[in-house]
Amino acid sequence: MNLAHVGIVMGSDSDLPVMAQAASFLERFQIPYEVRILSAHRSPDAALEYARSAAGRGLKVLIAGAGGAAHLAGVLAAVTTLPVIGVPIKTAALGGVDSLYAMVQMPKGIPVATVAIDGAANAAILAAQILAVHDQQLKARLAAYKEELAREVAARDAKLAQLGIEGYLREGKK
Amino acid sequence: MNLAHVGIVMGSDSDLPVMAQAASFLERFQIPYEVRILSAHRSPDAALEYARSAAGRGLKVLIAGAGGAAHLAGVLAAVTTLPVIGVPIKTAALGGVDSLYAMVQMPKGIPVATVAIDGAANAAILAAQILAVHDQQLKARLAAYKEELAREVAARDAKLAQLGIEGYLREGKK
Amino acid sequence: MNLAHVGIVMGSDSDLPVMAQAASFLERFQIPYEVRILSAHRSPDAALEYARSAAGRGLKVLIAGAGGAAHLAGVLAAVTTLPVIGVPIKTAALGGVDSLYAMVQMPKGIPVATVAIDGAANAAILAAQILAVHDQQLKARLAAYKEELAREVAARDAKLAQLGIEGYLREGKK
Amino acid sequence: MNLAHVGIVMGSDSDLPVMAQAASFLERFQIPYEVRILSAHRSPDAALEYARSAAGRGLKVLIAGAGGAAHLAGVLAAVTTLPVIGVPIKTAALGGVDSLYAMVQMPKGIPVATVAIDGAANAAILAAQILAVHDQQLKARLAAYKEELAREVAARDAKLAQLGIEGYLREGKK
Amino acid sequence: MNLAHVGIVMGSDSDLPVMAQAASFLERFQIPYEVRILSAHRSPDAALEYARSAAGRGLKVLIAGAGGAAHLAGVLAAVTTLPVIGVPIKTAALGGVDSLYAMVQMPKGIPVATVAIDGAANAAILAAQILAVHDQQLKARLAAYKEELAREVAARDAKLAQLGIEGYLREGKK
Amino acid sequence: MNLAHVGIVMGSDSDLPVMAQAASFLERFQIPYEVRILSAHRSPDAALEYARSAAGRGLKVLIAGAGGAAHLAGVLAAVTTLPVIGVPIKTAALGGVDSLYAMVQMPKGIPVATVAIDGAANAAILAAQILAVHDQQLKARLAAYKEELAREVAARDAKLAQLGIEGYLREGKK
Amino acid sequence: MNLAHVGIVMGSDSDLPVMAQAASFLERFQIPYEVRILSAHRSPDAALEYARSAAGRGLKVLIAGAGGAAHLAGVLAAVTTLPVIGVPIKTAALGGVDSLYAMVQMPKGIPVATVAIDGAANAAILAAQILAVHDQQLKARLAAYKEELAREVAARDAKLAQLGIEGYLREGKK
Amino acid sequence: MNLAHVGIVMGSDSDLPVMAQAASFLERFQIPYEVRILSAHRSPDAALEYARSAAGRGLKVLIAGAGGAAHLAGVLAAVTTLPVIGVPIKTAALGGVDSLYAMVQMPKGIPVATVAIDGAANAAILAAQILAVHDQQLKARLAAYKEELAREVAARDAKLAQLGIEGYLREGKK
Repeated sequence: MNLAHVGIVMGSDSDLPVMAQAASFLERFQIPYEVRILSAHRSPDAALEYARSAAGRGLKVLIAGAGGAAHLAGVLAAVTTLPVIGVPIKTAALGGVDSLYAMVQMPKGIPVATVAIDGAANAAILAAQILAVHDQQLKARLAAYKEELAREVAARDAKLAQLGIEGYLREGKK
Repeated sequence: MNLAHVGIVMGSDSDLPVMAQAASFLERFQIPYEVRILSAHRSPDAALEYARSAAGRGLKVLIAGAGGAAHLAGVLAAVTTLPVIGVPIKTAALGGVDSLYAMVQMPKGIPVATVAIDGAANAAILAAQILAVHDQQLKARLAAYKEELAREVAARDAKLAQLGIEGYLREGKK
Repeated sequence: MNLAHVGIVMGSDSDLPVMAQAASFLERFQIPYEVRILSAHRSPDAALEYARSAAGRGLKVLIAGAGGAAHLAGVLAAVTTLPVIGVPIKTAALGGVDSLYAMVQMPKGIPVATVAIDGAANAAILAAQILAVHDQQLKARLAAYKEELAREVAARDAKLAQLGIEGYLREGKK
Repeated sequence: MNLAHVGIVMGSDSDLPVMAQAASFLERFQIPYEVRILSAHRSPDAALEYARSAAGRGLKVLIAGAGGAAHLAGVLAAVTTLPVIGVPIKTAALGGVDSLYAMVQMPKGIPVATVAIDGAANAAILAAQILAVHDQQLKARLAAYKEELAREVAARDAKLAQLGIEGYLREGKK
Repeated sequence: MNLAHVGIVMGSDSDLPVMAQAASFLERFQIPYEVRILSAHRSPDAALEYARSAAGRGLKVLIAGAGGAAHLAGVLAAVTTLPVIGVPIKTAALGGVDSLYAMVQMPKGIPVATVAIDGAANAAILAAQILAVHDQQLKARLAAYKEELAREVAARDAKLAQLGIEGYLREGKK
Repeated sequence: MNLAHVGIVMGSDSDLPVMAQAASFLERFQIPYEVRILSAHRSPDAALEYARSAAGRGLKVLIAGAGGAAHLAGVLAAVTTLPVIGVPIKTAALGGVDSLYAMVQMPKGIPVATVAIDGAANAAILAAQILAVHDQQLKARLAAYKEELAREVAARDAKLAQLGIEGYLREGKK
Repeated sequence: MNLAHVGIVMGSDSDLPVMAQAASFLERFQIPYEVRILSAHRSPDAALEYARSAAGRGLKVLIAGAGGAAHLAGVLAAVTTLPVIGVPIKTAALGGVDSLYAMVQMPKGIPVATVAIDGAANAAILAAQILAVHDQQLKARLAAYKEELAREVAARDAKLAQLGIEGYLREGKK
Repeated sequence: MNLAHVGIVMGSDSDLPVMAQAASFLERFQIPYEVRILSAHRSPDAALEYARSAAGRGLKVLIAGAGGAAHLAGVLAAVTTLPVIGVPIKTAALGGVDSLYAMVQMPKGIPVATVAIDGAANAAILAAQILAVHDQQLKARLAAYKEELAREVAARDAKLAQLGIEGYLREGKK
């Protein structure tokens, strides 16, 4: 197996269904990654050790998903100079606005690159964009993905033109 | 000097004007304390070391003040079994709702006893209540303080009865 | 039966499914407790009488759960010097942000140690931490629980390493 | 002096500049009132005693102003069947949304008639409307006030027509 | 039939399941009422005519339920001097915080007595409290209801003491 | 087919069930329209080209629905002088308050006429009102629709008078 | 003077400093307008009469500014089929989120075209865009304004290139 | 001068005082940058052209600051595969929560790496972290900066130990 370039970390296995999208997008972009369950609060030693050793083990970007008082991304960022991407996880009570504030409002000196609530796919794409800064092949894959996004929208637009609103909605229910 | 029973920690010296109220209330209750500037993000090693060694050095309660993505209280709580009281500090952009969410919404297993935004005085009183569980003299001081609060309100009520609304407001402006 | 050290109080029996977690955690830590339904608004005399007599009956910590205009914790705290832990209960309309604000934003002089929305388990752990300030055995139980938390996270992390993301998610659905 | 029909209560003398507007509107409507500083948290006995004895002393409506975890109105309402009007006071950190939620979100059985943040004048007008249900003279005063409001708006509208926007704004700065 | 003393008005029949609770509480207190569907936006003439003629037809209190940009209560209050109680209805998108703000934040001069989101029962109790200002029998019914609330809580508290937490929860599921 | 006067645009086909209401209201008012799926982020060239050419192709009003960081309406408005109506789409995490803020808070110079969250029907009615400024027949249709709204409310009011609350609610469940 | 095409209405003269920007933008686009102070709550008859007669007096678009429980735009829209543009005014307590929700969340059938908080300038531009649907000269003025906006940004960009950040900031302070 | 590696873009020169911090941090890390005023709404062609040509001109990371309906970062991200860092600018009415939501809640496919409200310094540090993925010298500078942060906190902690709270606060006022 390749040495991982991206480390996906989450505070709890309840975050896995969301964070799995990050893994699947990294695979799509052929970026080697590893995925870990490490909690800033329940297993702080393991989490800190992971972040401290990350650069030395060849990791280039970290993605951290956490919910509520979502400290994981910030705690990792405190002990590494690697870019840390934060995914605020939606919460039952507050919809994830707690996770978002706890992640994005970092103090001067220690940034966390925050994406949308439950935005694990975008975290992976952002990681790919970061790695592509020095990787022309990856950059080409990102450009191809961007074109594919546009084509997909155009295909749906064309299908809507063909089927009309009701036809399109009926189709969607099949 | 007494060995400190309460450790007041803050993430930045900009929190000091607020956190100073905690110190002054601890003094009022004759509780030995120490005060430290330790950042979960900028000096994580010092912060963690502080919390890890706290119980061993005789500390019984920690009070942590932080603003924004306020991780300090949670990070301390992750590595000690002492009760950790969190003071969410008011922020310029969001008024401290970010600090509050980042502090209070801790995951199962690692509580932070959160008080009001900028509520450092109450953090000290809560620390006193915790210590008073096994300290009858302190409990008596707390009861006296409670009576004093009631007397103060009663005194203002009496003054209002005497001066009337306008008189009271005029007095306040002197 | 042991004399209760912790009193769990809730404003309505609709809060019981959440507050039951506090009871179950106190049992785990072998802390004797009692549980009561007492409303600050509908049975204020009983609630006040309960708090006023709490210390005299040997209670050391109160845990109060309430939702909406959640006054219970504050009303108890007004008439006792025992530490009062507040559990804001999630509400249908506002997700519990109403309960949280009504509990945590207490005025100077009367703190409520607020935990996360629906965070009854953490309320119990916090009560245990408070009692452990003068109870080495309880402190040891808390330390053991902390280690167990770390072991659980590590076990899930290991399981994820073994099964992979898809395997882990498949497992979870069984 | 008349026996008071309305009791204006506030949790702290810092609420007086706002609550004074309630007094001044009651005077305008010739409604006898009394004004008290009584705290649900710091002087709970006095506050409860006040509400319990209110109806017996001839009071017909209570107005309660409080900020933050604003329990005063709810605590009074818990022990009286008089209508209780709540004025949520603006707070430094959260603008008074905490006071509003803590006041308006009362549980079934114990209403608080909540007006706008810092809306003490409207609390007085509402009290007047309540008293006017059985007082035709007061009803006439309220109708006259309503007409005066309309006249004032019309006068400003006419002045704007006369002076134009710039003239009107210039006038306002004198 | 009795002449109605309370008019329950709602902006849409989708509000009826909530507002029906107001009707049922008024019946309990033996207060004659009428219930109407009148929209501030879709049938403004009917709504205004209703409010303008309300006092003349013997109505003493209006209760208005509305959601979203909930103008109904304010529009009624603009053209009557009767007390108007507002019930902010929960909304799909914003949980009713839109309804609450649109109702409670009335300008000086025109109060709306706002109760909790979906708090139609409390609107009726508040109406009863208002009418009871000059009706000793109704006041006695309200006092009896208050005692019943306390008894209910006490009964649940006793049942919990008897069955224990698990027994109580099992009972609830039957 | 008629040349379209209104262009309904949405960022994703997941918005179609909501935006279909705009189409159905335009049909009701006999306003020719077209409907497109165009994304400000995934197909920016197509979206910009659409808005740039809109006026030239005879379009008079654009309606844009988008959710989350809802930029579509603003991006269209940046490159056309046609009125652009924005429909903030409800989101899973934040209920659509993100969509609303991202749409309505446009900078000086580039307005977006924002309607309620998921308010696609109102977007169509607003488009009709705009077109009716110079179309007396359309204005008459709008007036007729307004009367129909009032009649519908009146019919429900009458039905409620006839069936009573319980009858009405029972009817609704059939 | 020209017959007014746009009516600018505000609930209170305290809104005039903000709403004056709408007037000044309408002048810039050479659109005849009138400006009125009319309150949905304090002078409802005048406000309703204004809106009812607006179309007959030649008005084509209404702009309404209001704060808090901002009902003015919705109340006008209830009785006219003219497009109504709403300007939510910033409030002291809640920053205008109350005004925004009370304006934008209108029920199906009665839209209000809402612009940004304090966005009176954009309300005027939107009114111009609406009128320009059938006025090529006005459309040309709007296109010219759009170009001017771009030129202004470009000029500032060029100035920044020339002066550098510090030079630019120094310049701004002169 | 060096070819710029980072492009700092802002929607308005009113954002310059905040965004200047990004420039000053990039200088500190010896990263060549350029700074531009380009508006997604007022100069969309220039903004789009800038982003489209950015990679070709050697830029590696973009930083975009914008407030309110803050579309700039998303619009740039729509047409480049470079990583785009967003700085939500604080707003007068909503404190920047509008800017934050409009920036961070990007749809799947087009991430914006969002930092704190007004967090321009952190945007620069994040850009440095991204560039350091393939630049050991820059990584060393980041590591040195991290150490400096820790030293600064330690120095303040030491100063506080020496001066005490009052001494420290007095010092700060000089």
